[in-house]
Amino acid sequence: MTFATRLNQAITRTRSVTCVGLDPRKSQLPAPIRDAVPNDSPDAWAAAYTQFCCEIIDVVKDIVPCVKPQAAFFEQLGPVGMVALGQVIAHASDAGLIVITDGKRNDIGSTAIAYADAYLGKSSPWRSDSLTVSPYLGRDSLEPFVEVCDEREAGIFVLVKTSNPGGGYLQDLQCEGRAIYQSVADLVTQLNAGRLDADGYGPIGAVVGATYPDQLVQLRAAMPHSILLVPGFGVQGGSAEDVLAALDDSGRGALVNSSRGIIFAHARKEFAETYGAARWHDAVRAATEEMNQQLRRS
Amino acid sequence: MTFATRLNQAITRTRSVTCVGLDPRKSQLPAPIRDAVPNDSPDAWAAAYTQFCCEIIDVVKDIVPCVKPQAAFFEQLGPVGMVALGQVIAHASDAGLIVITDGKRNDIGSTAIAYADAYLGKSSPWRSDSLTVSPYLGRDSLEPFVEVCDEREAGIFVLVKTSNPGGGYLQDLQCEGRAIYQSVADLVTQLNAGRLDADGYGPIGAVVGATYPDQLVQLRAAMPHSILLVPGFGVQGGSAEDVLAALDDSGRGALVNSSRGIIFAHARKEFAETYGAARWHDAVRAATEEMNQQLRRS
Repeated sequence: MTFATRLNQAITRTRSVTCVGLDPRKSQLPAPIRDAVPNDSPDAWAAAYTQFCCEIIDVVKDIVPCVKPQAAFFEQLGPVGMVALGQVIAHASDAGLIVITDGKRNDIGSTAIAYADAYLGKSSPWRSDSLTVSPYLGRDSLEPFVEVCDEREAGIFVLVKTSNPGGGYLQDLQCEGRAIYQSVADLVTQLNAGRLDADGYGPIGAVVGATYPDQLVQLRAAMPHSILLVPGFGVQGGSAEDVLAALDDSGRGALVNSSRGIIFAHARKEFAETYGAARWHDAVRAATEEMNQQLRRS
Repeated sequence: MTFATRLNQAITRTRSVTCVGLDPRKSQLPAPIRDAVPNDSPDAWAAAYTQFCCEIIDVVKDIVPCVKPQAAFFEQLGPVGMVALGQVIAHASDAGLIVITDGKRNDIGSTAIAYADAYLGKSSPWRSDSLTVSPYLGRDSLEPFVEVCDEREAGIFVLVKTSNPGGGYLQDLQCEGRAIYQSVADLVTQLNAGRLDADGYGPIGAVVGATYPDQLVQLRAAMPHSILLVPGFGVQGGSAEDVLAALDDSGRGALVNSSRGIIFAHARKEFAETYGAARWHDAVRAATEEMNQQLRRS
């Protein structure tokens, strides 16, 4: 079954478009996990990251379709962090979750294939359903990723319009009346051609930030065959109303990511009093359910 | 001493602007190394990659200023490949070479800092002098990398105009009479402001392909404070005359990369007959000296 079909089915099954971003950070881990780290070695922190992320996966696995581990935080710990990343991905896959590895990789030719193989390959310890990819190198940098997606029923999410304040520096530049991000959206649509499932979705998704609601509406229309991965909800400022525009008429076709707002929910005002660090799992569950609720249209 | 100063001094010392790209690929390893791989496990290939790259480093360390390991090929082997990457970087640093890790990483805020810390951090197993970075996320995605460069006298190379045929899809789009790559070049120049060494070079370098000689001339002028990293020489089609335009008047300020043309020189027509796979080290040395010679102006 193709990546897009699996993803939309998972959305239907869980009645959720929430993607839980797994961004472990030493300083923000809940006290019960942080205080149990025996020393400041990469091994000790890697074990803590694995425990933290796997416990989050266990808490949310029946109520969300997918998780998105952020490679950078694991890479920061060195090779042992990359072992932890593999353990987290495997745990999520075993739990039935779709896994999007957030690596924003990009390169050309055989180097792009090496990245695709690393993160989407059958025998890879980081075998994911999908990988985020940057488009600056152009069409021939994306094609090798697309080939690997075809072979492995995997997906990629191409950065189109990102949620950060400075994202527009390049992405919003106007070329003959059209923004750069629209050219990237065209490329995404071209790459999906001939690769659509029965619902009309292809393996090439797109990252479109919740913080630019007008562009989100525009890009939903411009990329009708792409699953949209929408960061920027909650902590970064995007509202539920804003992000609902990313969904198709059947309430599918998009994932809304929340990282800090869910995984560090124990530190949020709304949950700190009720749960605190000791009951951080309950805070994660409550924050996830709250987000699911906010994003259900009826 | 800053990254740019160290790099230019290394260029002067070696009378070379050659950067040796370390792109190990299973199928192209010289027979003496490939045939000695005991089995198809990631551990076995990782050991072969380490041996291959470290032996190349030993062959070229006195005649080039720097090497550029390509992260993707190591990542393709999984965590044990990342251990190998660390060993190769350490070996190159110990040999006195400047190390540019080619990761084309990019992200925002604390995630960008995590990448910078992973590849430029003092205690990182991948501690490099420099990292390649993609600009699509905009100015605020580069600033965290720049901060880390300031702290650690490290450098980054921002993708500006890449050497691949499809690089122009985005990079050449014209916005009010100027190409996107020129906007990225402006950003690079802005980020170097206030960070220049006595020779006028800052920590923010730029990747500009040898395959677009007119743009190379234009971008050399547009980024007077940036070390240019020039891929595309040799196998990809850029000539010596083309790439010499990347140098400043003192013959410094740029690095010209060659990967396959040097590391797999034993398979090149010119060297196969004289050396063959058995004497692959000699082929690497000869190819490097040939390139040095081609890039010396007088």
